[in-house]
Parts: sequence; structure tokens; C-alpha cells
Amino acid sequence: MNILLFKDTEIEGTRLKLADRRAEHVRKILKLSPGDTLRLGMINGRRGTGRILSVDEQQVELEVSLDQEPQPEPEVSLILALPRPIMVQRIFKQAATMGVRELHLIRSRRVEKSFFHSPVLQPEKIQALLIEGLEQATDTRLPSVHVHHYFKPFIEEVASTLAGRKLLADPGARQSLPEVFGTVHPAGSGDDSGGREGENRPARAPSCPVVLAIGPEGGWNEFEIEMFARLGFAPFTMGPRILHVDTAVVALLAQISLLQDLNR
Amino acid sequence: MNILLFKDTEIEGTRLKLADRRAEHVRKILKLSPGDTLRLGMINGRRGTGRILSVDEQQVELEVSLDQEPQPEPEVSLILALPRPIMVQRIFKQAATMGVRELHLIRSRRVEKSFFHSPVLQPEKIQALLIEGLEQATDTRLPSVHVHHYFKPFIEEVASTLAGRKLLADPGARQSLPEVFGTVHPAGSGDDSGGREGENRPARAPSCPVVLAIGPEGGWNEFEIEMFARLGFAPFTMGPRILHVDTAVVALLAQISLLQDLNR
Repeated sequence: MNILLFKDTEIEGTRLKLADRRAEHVRKILKLSPGDTLRLGMINGRRGTGRILSVDEQQVELEVSLDQEPQPEPEVSLILALPRPIMVQRIFKQAATMGVRELHLIRSRRVEKSFFHSPVLQPEKIQALLIEGLEQATDTRLPSVHVHHYFKPFIEEVASTLAGRKLLADPGARQSLPEVFGTVHPAGSGDDSGGREGENRPARAPSCPVVLAIGPEGGWNEFEIEMFARLGFAPFTMGPRILHVDTAVVALLAQISLLQDLNR
Repeated sequence: MNILLFKDTEIEGTRLKLADRRAEHVRKILKLSPGDTLRLGMINGRRGTGRILSVDEQQVELEVSLDQEPQPEPEVSLILALPRPIMVQRIFKQAATMGVRELHLIRSRRVEKSFFHSPVLQPEKIQALLIEGLEQATDTRLPSVHVHHYFKPFIEEVASTLAGRKLLADPGARQSLPEVFGTVHPAGSGDDSGGREGENRPARAPSCPVVLAIGPEGGWNEFEIEMFARLGFAPFTMGPRILHVDTAVVALLAQISLLQDLNR
């Protein structure tokens, strides 16, 4: 836990009283006493410092000062064919750590229907995992998570409204991520295969939103790829190595974050 | 398991007999019968196809044809302050999946000495985890793993011999990874802070080896940073989000792989 997070409903003025695992963390892991300070943040709000007023077996009381900006807002919307429960659990936490704006878990032909009934998808469970991820990243912005039981309505009613560079991870694709993203290759490399999508990019984009879709371990089927393509999703390959979906999520969020920085 | 791996000592001519977990995988997960084929590869050798000759409770016998090249050789040497056992276990697997040439686990001031006595560091255990990672990635090249109990001798006798762009993950650094890597920013972005290291880069590098050093969760100390700096390691920051070391390994290997591709 690199930041202690609380809800706006938990604070009274500048006083915060904790009696759950966070109080235990302050007592047993951080071993703080009155007068000590720690980093904290309001969920979906600002960050700052908490000064310990009192610590006892029942509760910890803090004086809160929210004098720091939140982390920069993540600019990735992630669409994910619902992975199996053990994976999705890890992904909630890691996606929150890496930073995503919203996460859409969707049905696809190669997703087992039973995955949708996993207890991991209970809203309280999801929120607990996201908060763990934010606590690691020192972020306060809770990604929104949406579960879609049907593919076609998701594409037609939701995916069609998402704004940004639309990217589809597809092992059968021929272009690489930087090629479809539109990064200019280093000068003098003599390679002009990149930049195809980048020709209309403004010289200095103030923001660079991305919508990234990652398929199930068996891949999207042809119909699904076609539906994404109609919305303007550009398919790209991650190369010859096959990654588990949780590894792919971290790897792609990291690569997109780098490409976003290069394009700013 | 996306590829079944075997050692050169296990094959006789073109016949391979398996009686361990791999045989069980063929029987119970893949449910293959005589005549069926599967992807296989020789550890540190070529890849190809195995045709099932016989399957019974005791063993599986295959006819092997190694008609495919191995994966391209990874060009990253990873230096890692030894993480705690549960992390290092995951990292062996994920590093093999993402592709590293060699992995050096080293002592640093903020590494607990007890970590070096973990059963996870037994050579057979390491090899099993690396092979799991390769099986996922369809790779055959086993990374070499080296455990170094002392920091200074490692720096002086080992790190000094490693060739490639030398990069040091350091939360206190001011430059970003692409800045120290030397990627040229997109034309017209007006940003000339990158490319510092790239000025002497050949126009089309045939290869792009990298030596990446990642510290313990508490970071390298000043002495350690200074020792790396003397060997030419360029410190870079991963940005304001704090990642667990296993997430950082995947994220950085993904970003470096992308920068290597852009620089080829």
C-alpha cells in the first residue's frame, strides 16, 4: 500500500476515522504513532497527507490535508473478452495499477459462459481489487468496470461510442502496434511502413485517447474481427510470442503508454 | 502449453518417449491419439512437429520433425535486485515468456538476505519455471540465470562485461525510457529532448542489445546508482505510478522490445 484511500463519505471535515484493514495496516505494517504522517487520497479525488491523531485497538484517527493533484487521467479504455476468473482477478488489480479509464469485459465466441457467473465479478469484489491496484500506483481514480453479456449489442451500442485510436490485438494481423498507432520511425531507418494512420495526426496532440481490445486466449473469431473493423479498430500483432492474457494486458498498456508519450 | 519442449538427451534419432507431466498433458488436456500432431521444440534448439505414434497409461511416443527455426534470439540481459520468493517465481516464468537472454539476480542494500536461501532458487525449480514460460511463448531458448550474493563483485566482474545499451530503472531519475534509449520523437512534435543517446546510432542497426537493471521495491541506494553509472548505465524513470517489481519487469520488457523494433 503506497497510498491509503478513503471514500468522500468517510471523512468529516478534515477528520478521518478508520476501523478496518486500513487501520490494521497503519498499526501493524506501518507501525505509526500519533504525530506520524502518511500519504493518502480520496477515491476519485485529490491526494495529500494524513497526520495520525490517535491509534488504538479499535480505530485510527487522522487529520487530512488534500494538497496534491490526482495522478494524470489515464487515456486508455480497455475492452477485454472476459478471461477466466483467476486471470480477471489479477487483471482488475494490474489494470488499476497501470491506469485505465474504463474496462469493458465482454462476451466473445471463445469465452466460456460460466465465467460470467464467477463471484469475482461481484461489484464489491471488483472494487476491492481495483483499490488494491490504485493503492500500489498511488492513484485515486477508480476505473469504471462494465460487464457485457452479449457481443453484438456491446459493439453496436457501446463500442461505437468510445472515442480514441481504436486498436485490436489480433495474432493474425500483419502490422505491429507502432505501425497501426502511427509512430514515426527513427529518422534514417529507411522504413516507411509505419505512420500509415499517423498522417492526419496533429503535430502536438494535447491528449491521445486509445481504445484497446484484447481477445480471449483462443483469439477473436472472424465475425468479431469484422465487427470491430467496421468501427475502425485497426488490428495489430504482438509478435510471434504467445502471452497469457494477464501478461498481454500489462505489456500492451505499457507499450501504449510509451507510444502516447512519444505522440504528445 | 503452446509448445511441448524436450531435451536433446531425450530424443533417439527422431523418436521421443515421454512419461512425465508432458505425457499427461498430451493424454488428458490435448486428448491426442496416434496420428495426431502437436507443436514441439528442442530446448535451445529448433522447433517443429511431433506425430503421435502411441499413447498409453505409461507413456507417449512421438515421431519428431524439427523443421522450424527457433524464435528470434532475445536481446535483453536483465539484472534484478533479488525480489521476494513469490515474486521471483512469477518473474522466472514471465521473463522466459517475454524473452530475455540472461537473468542476473543480485544482492542490493534493500534486498533481504534471507531471499537468497529460498527453495525457489534451486536450479531444478528455476529451470521448471523457465520452461513453463517458454512453453507459453512457443520459444525453445532457455535464458541463463545467475545468482550473485555480493553487489560489488557483480558490478566489477560481471556487469562490466555485459554489452548493449545500459539502462537503469530508478524512480529518482529525470529522463524517461525513450529519452535515454534514444528514440527519435515523431516529426514535428518540436521536442528535442530525446535522441540524446541516439546520435551515434547506425542508421539501420542489425541488432539492438540492451542491459536492463531493475532495483528492489525500495529502490537502489545512492552507492549502487553511482556504481551502475560508472559502467555507463543511464537512469530512467517509469513515471509517477509505482509498480510491483513483477509488473515492472513485464512492462519494461514490453517497452524495450517496442523501442528495439523502432530502432531496427
